[in-house]
Amino acid sequence: MIYLDNAATTFPKPQCVAEEVQAVLKKQCVNPGRGSYRAAAAAVERVEMCRKNILKIAGGNQANSVVLTPSATVALNMLIMGLHLNDSHTVYVSAYEHNAVMRPLFQKQQQTGLHIRQLPMNTQTMEVDLERLDYDFHQYPPDVICMTHVSNVTGYILPIHSVCRVARSIQKNVIVIVDGSQALGLLEEPLKEDSSIDYYIFAAHKTLYGIFGLGGFICNTQYAHRLLADTKKYTPYLCGGTGRDSLNLEMQCSTPEDLECASLDIVAVAALSEAIHWKLEGNNGWAEEKNLTEKIITGLQNISGVTLYLPLEGCRISIVSFNVKGYKADEVAMILDEDYGIAVRCGYHCAPLIHEFLKDREYGGTVRVSVGKFTTDKEIIAFIKAIEEIAGEIL
Amino acid sequence: MIYLDNAATTFPKPQCVAEEVQAVLKKQCVNPGRGSYRAAAAAVERVEMCRKNILKIAGGNQANSVVLTPSATVALNMLIMGLHLNDSHTVYVSAYEHNAVMRPLFQKQQQTGLHIRQLPMNTQTMEVDLERLDYDFHQYPPDVICMTHVSNVTGYILPIHSVCRVARSIQKNVIVIVDGSQALGLLEEPLKEDSSIDYYIFAAHKTLYGIFGLGGFICNTQYAHRLLADTKKYTPYLCGGTGRDSLNLEMQCSTPEDLECASLDIVAVAALSEAIHWKLEGNNGWAEEKNLTEKIITGLQNISGVTLYLPLEGCRISIVSFNVKGYKADEVAMILDEDYGIAVRCGYHCAPLIHEFLKDREYGGTVRVSVGKFTTDKEIIAFIKAIEEIAGEIL
Repeated sequence: MIYLDNAATTFPKPQCVAEEVQAVLKKQCVNPGRGSYRAAAAAVERVEMCRKNILKIAGGNQANSVVLTPSATVALNMLIMGLHLNDSHTVYVSAYEHNAVMRPLFQKQQQTGLHIRQLPMNTQTMEVDLERLDYDFHQYPPDVICMTHVSNVTGYILPIHSVCRVARSIQKNVIVIVDGSQALGLLEEPLKEDSSIDYYIFAAHKTLYGIFGLGGFICNTQYAHRLLADTKKYTPYLCGGTGRDSLNLEMQCSTPEDLECASLDIVAVAALSEAIHWKLEGNNGWAEEKNLTEKIITGLQNISGVTLYLPLEGCRISIVSFNVKGYKADEVAMILDEDYGIAVRCGYHCAPLIHEFLKDREYGGTVRVSVGKFTTDKEIIAFIKAIEEIAGEIL
Repeated sequence: MIYLDNAATTFPKPQCVAEEVQAVLKKQCVNPGRGSYRAAAAAVERVEMCRKNILKIAGGNQANSVVLTPSATVALNMLIMGLHLNDSHTVYVSAYEHNAVMRPLFQKQQQTGLHIRQLPMNTQTMEVDLERLDYDFHQYPPDVICMTHVSNVTGYILPIHSVCRVARSIQKNVIVIVDGSQALGLLEEPLKEDSSIDYYIFAAHKTLYGIFGLGGFICNTQYAHRLLADTKKYTPYLCGGTGRDSLNLEMQCSTPEDLECASLDIVAVAALSEAIHWKLEGNNGWAEEKNLTEKIITGLQNISGVTLYLPLEGCRISIVSFNVKGYKADEVAMILDEDYGIAVRCGYHCAPLIHEFLKDREYGGTVRVSVGKFTTDKEIIAFIKAIEEIAGEIL
């Protein structure tokens, strides 16, 4: 199999991650924070090491907190559903948001009447229109902004820092939530230096090369910390045992980590920690992904009958969406699988808003290819050749 | 390490589970349901096999549904928080409930004014008082009952079927939720035959010998199925991408499985499937656990200065709570760890209500030992000897 579905989950994982999983399963698969014995304490140390590694790769500092959750989706639900929002509040989203943002937000809207607005788009380049942003924010000041860092459909890198700066110049205490599921570990240190993003979401099993079962968010500002501890502004969304303060029926959230209920998945924690270590030891950065992405784009651009949904050069990475004239997206994916052993994804990719701009309905969405650290030039050549043949069939 | 904290998580896991984890990580760690290629389809088959195995070990039938979630805690939040309850509703809980039940319920009470009542207790035997049950249910008819199947503090097996029968004789459509986190795979086929329990919760990493990162619930009655699909009675609690119907902002729940959002943890799914297979191939039933539990009880009963918190014989399994005169619970746990290399848990065990009946506050909770399929007689003998020495120090 030529695996070009790394945006769904990176595969394979580094050898050291698989080895770490095996080692922990055999020797230390106990419940961190639930016992007072040494193995449980060692598991707690692993969790703390994992938090440090996450902060390191994000460029965060030690004043930041990392909240571990079972997935990025759970992290987004905890924030979007837990924050006290009502019909006086305006929440901006980018057109690139995933249903992990849009569905909780839509439900919150049904319940509270909050206002959802889209960040302005340049319909030519499909970029966030930074020039119109200032005007829009002045017209309807943002209380919350939810934006993905890298689109899971087109690989577009959103100008999160610019959006954040403009927003804060108008509304100092705007809450900025960035979904870094397709970005952390790929884009360098998103929280470095003067970033004032409040919450940065991550998924262990994607660009971080960990395994399923772990996600979370980084609390990156003092305001973000205070907000979660303020019972007038935030109500914990997932409730349960934390191994602490057991006799208290109320979920505590004096620190963000208090929100972590249920047994932590120590295997996934150890895997992520090891994966980040592997990245930082020479597998970090996006050079390979950038190179492979541009090779795909160049290859596809040369094929007659291929429509590409391309962000501008310099703001795209790892993911390419396209269609082939004469085929539905799912037909191309099926042929790639059955005749060429190439795994890609097709359809709407759980991103409901962007397709209005891509105008891809007639194809039933897009064919999406996505590369990872283990994708080879040879695989890309085979993929391009396959698309040439598929497109050629129709001509 | 002598590991007697199996109620926190069973350890070690069967060899075949570790091998399955490794095999899936290496060969098939792709995102089920998110791609149309064969590896993704094979991952979907694994998920369906896992559902079948869960139903088999639960004694459920093929009309039941299995909803997979990242943990039992998430499953309980989805049910307790998602059901439309208000101040006209009465929810009964047993005194043995875990904070995974009590904290969501307490928060729901704060939000809605629902009424929480306790199932009557026989304070002598610490059993559910079945004689008084009928009276209580007539006085205050139950709309929902949440009860654990096996107490994570004392190992008490609750008479879930009797409670359910009495409740249904008074209120036919009472919603019965059983937390089987400490029970499924240990107690034989809880949903067999005429069980009319609606939702049965499980945790993969406990008595089922799977790994962290997976839990869920079985929808066991037609009413339970209908309820989740009825937007007037249930609102999906976790919202996100499901890989289906991507353009729809609203979470669908025409079938219970629609509630599964975010990437399924295929590694944990495969591990659970393999673990249940291992159980059904000759490692099922509670004979070993029963034997070991009674050995612990007999051993501790012979030691002067030990207070046991014992359910009656015949309704206790795997877990024993006790204290030693002259020591706080955490002191005993620390000595066991440091001087004997024995891992146990101490404190209140995330179960807030039961300690009023155990009257263990002066000890700071209880010392809890819990056995699993890999616990040996020799380990129990060493543990009993250790407690003899610890108790002897004081005399």
